[in-house]
Amino acid sequence: MVSSEKPPAAGAEQRLKDLGIALPPPPTPFGAYVEAVKIGKLLFLSGMLPVIDRKPQYVGRVGGELSAKDGRKAAEIATLSALAAIKEHLGSLDKVTGVAKLGVYIATEGDFRDHPKVADGASELLLKVFGTEMLSGRIVLGVASVPLGMPVEVELVLEVAE
Amino acid sequence: MVSSEKPPAAGAEQRLKDLGIALPPPPTPFGAYVEAVKIGKLLFLSGMLPVIDRKPQYVGRVGGELSAKDGRKAAEIATLSALAAIKEHLGSLDKVTGVAKLGVYIATEGDFRDHPKVADGASELLLKVFGTEMLSGRIVLGVASVPLGMPVEVELVLEVAE
Amino acid sequence: MVSSEKPPAAGAEQRLKDLGIALPPPPTPFGAYVEAVKIGKLLFLSGMLPVIDRKPQYVGRVGGELSAKDGRKAAEIATLSALAAIKEHLGSLDKVTGVAKLGVYIATEGDFRDHPKVADGASELLLKVFGTEMLSGRIVLGVASVPLGMPVEVELVLEVAE
Repeated sequence: MVSSEKPPAAGAEQRLKDLGIALPPPPTPFGAYVEAVKIGKLLFLSGMLPVIDRKPQYVGRVGGELSAKDGRKAAEIATLSALAAIKEHLGSLDKVTGVAKLGVYIATEGDFRDHPKVADGASELLLKVFGTEMLSGRIVLGVASVPLGMPVEVELVLEVAE
Repeated sequence: MVSSEKPPAAGAEQRLKDLGIALPPPPTPFGAYVEAVKIGKLLFLSGMLPVIDRKPQYVGRVGGELSAKDGRKAAEIATLSALAAIKEHLGSLDKVTGVAKLGVYIATEGDFRDHPKVADGASELLLKVFGTEMLSGRIVLGVASVPLGMPVEVELVLEVAE
Repeated sequence: MVSSEKPPAAGAEQRLKDLGIALPPPPTPFGAYVEAVKIGKLLFLSGMLPVIDRKPQYVGRVGGELSAKDGRKAAEIATLSALAAIKEHLGSLDKVTGVAKLGVYIATEGDFRDHPKVADGASELLLKVFGTEMLSGRIVLGVASVPLGMPVEVELVLEVAE
């Protein structure tokens, strides 16, 4: 296979390119806040939603009108938004040196229990982009609702090069 | 206009004074924890509730017995409690140099979607007190319930002068 | 009493021994993440669940099929898991120098309001192990659901010796 002849990807930007992933436009706030705040080596991202150009890509609850597969896809879109926000704030994803916390908050209905499957939509994308050496800590919760009726919200606290 | 003749407010304490805002008594814990913990440059606040002197000012869920406007007011009261806790812990609000994370957790019912309106009750108060240069990151979630049946809980992680 | 002749416990490991608490096996991830990430002086733990050897010890919601007492016990088991994860990551609990944030997320049903009683299951165990000088900040929320249908999830952000 040709791909095996490529040298190992040097960093997140190169991996993104190799994967053929195009980032969406960076998200813009729904109120009086900003999308990212850097304190020392930590970058705190605001809650990322499955929107493209402020338009919700999914509405509803997982375990209700939406399936775990829908939730997984929504988590992936929210994480793409997060990557776009990080890139906008830092200039390059290569400045990320660790992922302290990935929070995946899923609007669930009834007795839905497959939260990990939904959250893996976010985790597996981060894994592809940042590699196994930056596997994140993770908090996953089922919540009553997410802003604007969306099914998933993603939180990230990152370690970045100063 | 007279107000345009005032010099720009020097800091949060002066702004609070100019706004005529009197802080409530600092909150006290409902269990075996403390209201604030400082680690290096970060100040972690415990969950702030819409209480005055430990007395809930609102009980119920937004989208149920309470309106978005009630929720917004509750978020504002919880944030005033947060300011009182910060001042008690640091001695002065002027020691705050950034707001890494504002979490606004809203007990919601049914298909409530106007979370940003509720959260803006907290964000706009922070904006008035800390100014645009310290706009926060923000996580907003609809939750099943908040301790003691209150509609809103506010979390803050701040950057403070060491 | 013989116990009064013992010198004061030097640290968390000694206290754990004195209390006769045996830690469970350290938890293992339910997806593409790790149980702990250290950034500078901060240790971020992933969400800890009331499991032993990946087996849920409680399933259900507090205020529904489970009582506040069940929830309290579940919070305690999740916190024991957290202690095991900390020990595995740092080598010794004595390296913990502070507890910035304890998050206790409780799957609640109906009008349950006694969240602090449930959360105290976590707080009181931390108090016994780390002492009053390390009382934590605390966020307590009622959520719609916790992964795998469990009633409680615990989050910890710790300060550790570098």
